[in-house]
Amino acid sequence: MEVQIERIQTDIEAINAFNGTPEKGITRLTFSKEYEGARSYLVEGLKKIGAHVSVAIAGNVRARLQGTEKGRPAVMVGSHIDSVFQGGRFDGVIGVVSALEVARVIVEKNIAHRHPIDVVVFAEEEGSRFGSVLAGSRAWAGKLSLDDLSRLKDKDGLSYLTAMEHIGIVPDDNSILKPEGIKAMLELHIEQSLVLETMGLQIGVVEAIAGIKQLLVTIYGVSNHAGATPMGIRFDALQGAVRIITSVEEIAAQGMGKHTVATVGSIICEPGQANVIPGRVRFTLDIRDTDSSLLDAMVEKITVVIAKTCQDRGLTYNIELRSDTTPIALSKDMVDLIEKMARKKKVESFRMISGALHDSSILAELTNVGMIFVPSKNGRSHCPEEFTELTDIGLGADILLEAVIELSS
Amino acid sequence: MEVQIERIQTDIEAINAFNGTPEKGITRLTFSKEYEGARSYLVEGLKKIGAHVSVAIAGNVRARLQGTEKGRPAVMVGSHIDSVFQGGRFDGVIGVVSALEVARVIVEKNIAHRHPIDVVVFAEEEGSRFGSVLAGSRAWAGKLSLDDLSRLKDKDGLSYLTAMEHIGIVPDDNSILKPEGIKAMLELHIEQSLVLETMGLQIGVVEAIAGIKQLLVTIYGVSNHAGATPMGIRFDALQGAVRIITSVEEIAAQGMGKHTVATVGSIICEPGQANVIPGRVRFTLDIRDTDSSLLDAMVEKITVVIAKTCQDRGLTYNIELRSDTTPIALSKDMVDLIEKMARKKKVESFRMISGALHDSSILAELTNVGMIFVPSKNGRSHCPEEFTELTDIGLGADILLEAVIELSS
Repeated sequence: MEVQIERIQTDIEAINAFNGTPEKGITRLTFSKEYEGARSYLVEGLKKIGAHVSVAIAGNVRARLQGTEKGRPAVMVGSHIDSVFQGGRFDGVIGVVSALEVARVIVEKNIAHRHPIDVVVFAEEEGSRFGSVLAGSRAWAGKLSLDDLSRLKDKDGLSYLTAMEHIGIVPDDNSILKPEGIKAMLELHIEQSLVLETMGLQIGVVEAIAGIKQLLVTIYGVSNHAGATPMGIRFDALQGAVRIITSVEEIAAQGMGKHTVATVGSIICEPGQANVIPGRVRFTLDIRDTDSSLLDAMVEKITVVIAKTCQDRGLTYNIELRSDTTPIALSKDMVDLIEKMARKKKVESFRMISGALHDSSILAELTNVGMIFVPSKNGRSHCPEEFTELTDIGLGADILLEAVIELSS
Repeated sequence: MEVQIERIQTDIEAINAFNGTPEKGITRLTFSKEYEGARSYLVEGLKKIGAHVSVAIAGNVRARLQGTEKGRPAVMVGSHIDSVFQGGRFDGVIGVVSALEVARVIVEKNIAHRHPIDVVVFAEEEGSRFGSVLAGSRAWAGKLSLDDLSRLKDKDGLSYLTAMEHIGIVPDDNSILKPEGIKAMLELHIEQSLVLETMGLQIGVVEAIAGIKQLLVTIYGVSNHAGATPMGIRFDALQGAVRIITSVEEIAAQGMGKHTVATVGSIICEPGQANVIPGRVRFTLDIRDTDSSLLDAMVEKITVVIAKTCQDRGLTYNIELRSDTTPIALSKDMVDLIEKMARKKKVESFRMISGALHDSSILAELTNVGMIFVPSKNGRSHCPEEFTELTDIGLGADILLEAVIELSS
């Protein structure tokens, strides 16, 4: 059984026509008008094949193909269509359009399935609009309440629920996902790294998703005149911060596990003038690992560096834990199933980890989750240069199709 | 002869009532409505004592008390009233209000002076609005043309000349300052450092003003997903930048002269998201010294560090020289005169350098310049904590008064 790659291509192009920054990359923030355009396009395609479309809590879409036997748990398949600011054309999108294509083939070929098949589109995976990653799947899994969602605000102060209401999305199914209602969840996604490309492989099978600790570190010094203050009597917050940031790379690259990554992605220096010594510097710290003890160790080591650097330099500091996601081992059964289907397609696959979080991380606490990775050109992602070959997407979708057929039969 | 300290206090308070950020420090950007309020207050005070007020090129104010002999060169005295963002109450302001008080005393006491006395208020000393320090005095000295001024833009894209026009300042004297028209220039200013306070002295006499080189450094890397990109294959622009910034402090503090200072005051990281590896980092570099060969050596050393760091890390870079001011030795005669007047007041003074630039730096190329420093509490300046005792300001103004009387007699 095979998908039709031209239809997947058409869908990818159609979704990316909904773009808030056509001058650079793809920007499709959750509940923006571009988002609603892409979402409506998908809902239309899903209704066309007879799926029953409902809007779940937090604006997640569930399109169900009923199974032949009542009361069986559903096989979920899907991903997300929201993007980072000026991101790429493939992140999330290929998982959603492949799920639509899988459902289309199953309907057209009249493939019997006892279990319901749910094509799902999770809202706010990236956290780009409301600052909280995986908000849609977390709410659906009962980990964020409606109160929590109403407290999540975008940069204009609009809440998640108000923004959803503004574009006319009204949930008609407020039930929370329960383990007994789901047999498995499958997601096809771009790798967002260089592993598959480096190995010359087309298919990755995810064994584990890295946990993340995100910290916000603030260093306080004394702002003063850059010309009149001798070097020896300065309390320069930036000079402290750069030594800490230097250590972040050294600790992550040398002292930890092979999957450890740590990134300072944002730094803000105040007052931020060329002729004024920085009095306050604030930076983010994103640490990921598949081993939670290494995550803890990394935070501990960096905390020691921060404390020592500040003590040596007469600075003070604050460390705020902004988010904390534990590493997740995915289902062994799903890894085996995806590998089996890859062999059926005569394709070599590779067991790997995901350094990025996915909605599947949340689903993995409820059900058996399987993830298929396809290569990212030059490992680029979350940027306009993000690219994956259509043939790789097609192969991933073929494997996804076979896996869904087996799981739902 | 003595100034009236209460009037100086009143004027300082009146000027600082014009403040764009009453919640924190003083913000009075050139040609803002707060600036125009303070400027009008001063012009009114100057007209009240019979000074002839004209608006010079670039919006500089000149208030002239005519001398008893025609054609004599003027004794200039003054400073500036523009501030940095969220700066202090004394920087520039005390020099302007002391000049006003000096003129007021000379008029009230009917002190004869053969030379004209010009109270001057220079525009855009700090460069906080249009990004170019000493813009007013440089234009007045013929070092910036009207074309140059029209190319200087604020953050909203408004040009220097348009912004000046918007608040109704129209120059009525477009002449350029000439050496033959000026006998001397005197400026009272806060020290902005810890030297006087540390020595327990009230009066500093400036012998030299440090030269400044300001660079804008851009580091280019590759923006990528913070979770999915292993440490070993990153081209993180911020990780390169922090190593360079670390070296800036090391080179300035250890390898150079006793007056060398170097500061990174501003850093901008793009795209600036916690979960994205920085692809571009831009930072300013401000280097000061009284020895221009050390300035050059410092720039050279840092350029080597930038090149090497980028080469080692697969990054690229750009270095732009934003401003370049040579160190200036002030007039020996003026140093002697100020010291003499300090002795007359039975006050010990101290010869020192100015790490900060002043409009006097520009005037020093045209005439004899003298600068009087008064202590800054804890050396703080360019910040809300900036403070100088009123008694010190009064003493500085008394010395200024005696010096102006002697020079203009």
